[in-house]
Amino acid sequence: MVSPTPSDDNSPTSQDAPRPAIELITLGDELLLGLTANGHLTFIGQEISKRGGRLLRNVTIGDEATAIAAQFAESWARATVVITTGGLGPTCDDRTREEVAKVLGQELVFDDTIAEDMRERFRAFGRPMTDNNLKQAYRFADGEVLRNANGTAPGLWYERDGKVLVMLPGPPNELQPMLVEQVLPRLAAMGVLAEGESYVQLRTAGVGESALESMLQPIFDAHAGELEVAFCAHQGQVDCRLSPARADVSRARLEEVAQQCAAELGADFMGFGHDSLAKICADLLREQEAMLAVAETATGGMLASSFTDLSGATKFFAGGSVCYSNESKMQLLDVPEEILMQHGAVSAENAIAMAAGAAEKLGAAYGLAITGFAGPCGGNNENPVGTMFVALYTQEGVWSKRIRYPGPRQAVKLRAVNFALDWLRRELVKARDNQSPGLPSLGLHDR
Amino acid sequence: MVSPTPSDDNSPTSQDAPRPAIELITLGDELLLGLTANGHLTFIGQEISKRGGRLLRNVTIGDEATAIAAQFAESWARATVVITTGGLGPTCDDRTREEVAKVLGQELVFDDTIAEDMRERFRAFGRPMTDNNLKQAYRFADGEVLRNANGTAPGLWYERDGKVLVMLPGPPNELQPMLVEQVLPRLAAMGVLAEGESYVQLRTAGVGESALESMLQPIFDAHAGELEVAFCAHQGQVDCRLSPARADVSRARLEEVAQQCAAELGADFMGFGHDSLAKICADLLREQEAMLAVAETATGGMLASSFTDLSGATKFFAGGSVCYSNESKMQLLDVPEEILMQHGAVSAENAIAMAAGAAEKLGAAYGLAITGFAGPCGGNNENPVGTMFVALYTQEGVWSKRIRYPGPRQAVKLRAVNFALDWLRRELVKARDNQSPGLPSLGLHDR
Repeated sequence: MVSPTPSDDNSPTSQDAPRPAIELITLGDELLLGLTANGHLTFIGQEISKRGGRLLRNVTIGDEATAIAAQFAESWARATVVITTGGLGPTCDDRTREEVAKVLGQELVFDDTIAEDMRERFRAFGRPMTDNNLKQAYRFADGEVLRNANGTAPGLWYERDGKVLVMLPGPPNELQPMLVEQVLPRLAAMGVLAEGESYVQLRTAGVGESALESMLQPIFDAHAGELEVAFCAHQGQVDCRLSPARADVSRARLEEVAQQCAAELGADFMGFGHDSLAKICADLLREQEAMLAVAETATGGMLASSFTDLSGATKFFAGGSVCYSNESKMQLLDVPEEILMQHGAVSAENAIAMAAGAAEKLGAAYGLAITGFAGPCGGNNENPVGTMFVALYTQEGVWSKRIRYPGPRQAVKLRAVNFALDWLRRELVKARDNQSPGLPSLGLHDR
Repeated sequence: MVSPTPSDDNSPTSQDAPRPAIELITLGDELLLGLTANGHLTFIGQEISKRGGRLLRNVTIGDEATAIAAQFAESWARATVVITTGGLGPTCDDRTREEVAKVLGQELVFDDTIAEDMRERFRAFGRPMTDNNLKQAYRFADGEVLRNANGTAPGLWYERDGKVLVMLPGPPNELQPMLVEQVLPRLAAMGVLAEGESYVQLRTAGVGESALESMLQPIFDAHAGELEVAFCAHQGQVDCRLSPARADVSRARLEEVAQQCAAELGADFMGFGHDSLAKICADLLREQEAMLAVAETATGGMLASSFTDLSGATKFFAGGSVCYSNESKMQLLDVPEEILMQHGAVSAENAIAMAAGAAEKLGAAYGLAITGFAGPCGGNNENPVGTMFVALYTQEGVWSKRIRYPGPRQAVKLRAVNFALDWLRRELVKARDNQSPGLPSLGLHDR
């Protein structure tokens, strides 16, 4: 899935200096029992790689004390940075702090600052603080505290012999800001990670990985020895990351090459950074003060969710309909019964009627519709499982496209949604450029 | 999150015999880079714990050959069963098979059955098979093959000295059926896992964990020494698992106690097993041949998705509306403008108008609506962030309830959806029991 393509294999690279080994220990019976997904790995892995680091290993173990001690001792002996998540709370199965202290040979000392933070927090919520909470007010004697603005258990920081231990609380809304605001800057200050993003990412849509590589290869060849290039494909989108291959390649230089790539890619280029297709469409809609309405059958709310998951969606998203029955298509979107009788619900005609109906009913400038067979059931000879019709309504007219993806239901749905979003994006870019020709806004420095 | 409550601490338990240690090694740079969530841990952890086993550890490492060899050697020395995922494909970064063979001291031999399976698969898809695919046709000399009905790379099985190695392909739609249909039955035949589910799970909704425990404690006390009880809470739902505490406690006995618990819980009891709230509602709707329509604002499609993610949703789900703008509430659901002007979009009045509008427009017997402030923005003094109004329309009338949850946006949304689904479930159960009084159908033996 990730294919690094060094532009010149013989060039000296920044990889010559070994990267500090970073290990992540995620604690919790609920992870091993499959009751909760290991979102910490995804988040922490992403944030570290953005800053030029790399998780070497993630070990998940349960809440059992001796297992925690044994695993921590092993990771601490091997890695330069050890990050743990979970097990810092007030209940009796939160034993991580004690076990780790034993391995480090560190005393746990009561910290008044933490205790005061906790009391303050309980006061603010108007609740009495029970004594077991004070268990969270202990830190390592030679360690520091990472304050927690969103919960009671603080994080812990400990350094020895050039090694770092970071202990983070389990709830994602506590862990994530603590990592980004406190831990990453400290690791950057120590030289373990880069200060900011260590690569420039170009996002593309609607073009395959190998076609993309062919388009960009002449640019990479012209900068042989300067760049490392990696591609990552996901359901209709491909990201391309440019990193410096040598320490003397500046950020400005990377951005210059990235701009050349973006210009070469034209409409296939989505943007720099990490914004989703929906976010990019949302920004373009806001810029044009235009509203969007959507309608969908087989994707069952996924198209609407991709917009409503963004905050402030009321500014550009009028609404959506999930139309399973023919009745709902007629009632919610004014799809004429004749279209459904003559062409069926999975047809270009119905997709067009849905997109136009959604936009016109809600007074939106753009309407986007998806209808099809996501599988595993449904489908017919003409339109087998995996066939989707996507329609886009704009002020210039309304069109439909037929697509077909093999694969499991969830992948088919996601592909169809990404295809629809990318089509909308291309139309929005055209509309913008028609309004202000000669002003290509690639956005790298706008962020 | 998981709190085991032994009903009698001094009783001998089935835990006296040590459980076979099972370790999972998940391979892939994309996991450590945070590009893909580690869904294999969730799925495999769940399936193993259902059958009375327990994952002791999950290690995620990248695609680098020496790291794979070192990690496998470590896990193989320590565990009774080692399961690996990924790295079995045809490309050059799929090195797992070779590295593991070296550690085991096993030759890799070409297997004609696998090669023929692959050729057949390519023929069926009308594509030529490139030679690099034949790399996947190798198995361990003393090992076996797990055939793959959904992809080219077969799984591998190897036993030695009472230890088992299971190697599974990475794509979830290949791995999951292979695990359930081939691996779990083999492990059960060896006595590593139970033949079927080793516990009886009661799902409950709308009651907290400690209240639930108090309600059931008299039943547990009456069966002291027979049962192990564990609770697991998730966003408005609590599961209670009963397992045998002694080898002589039969499955029938467990089910008998579970029936007692279900009867004691009354309407708070959702069902036995693993069905979601949406699935239970769907089954009740199908049973009554009734259709459902939904309407939502802040949950942005999550309510609709919980039904459309179920296969065959057209049978009971008429459709849904995601109404962000006031325009959309008026146009899609006939919400009167006066209600929006006088009471606002986040109000009991609007929720009621949305639920009734959705049901009446689509000719559905039931209408379910959610409107509110999921946060982090929005909210006012009267209805702060986290306030949601849920409304339910039935043939008997339409009502609204106000709920408020603190917490991050995603949790607030999920809570509100679960609250709405649980309310619908309770009404559907009432409607069913009114139709056939004296026939409580608890469903344990119906599944």
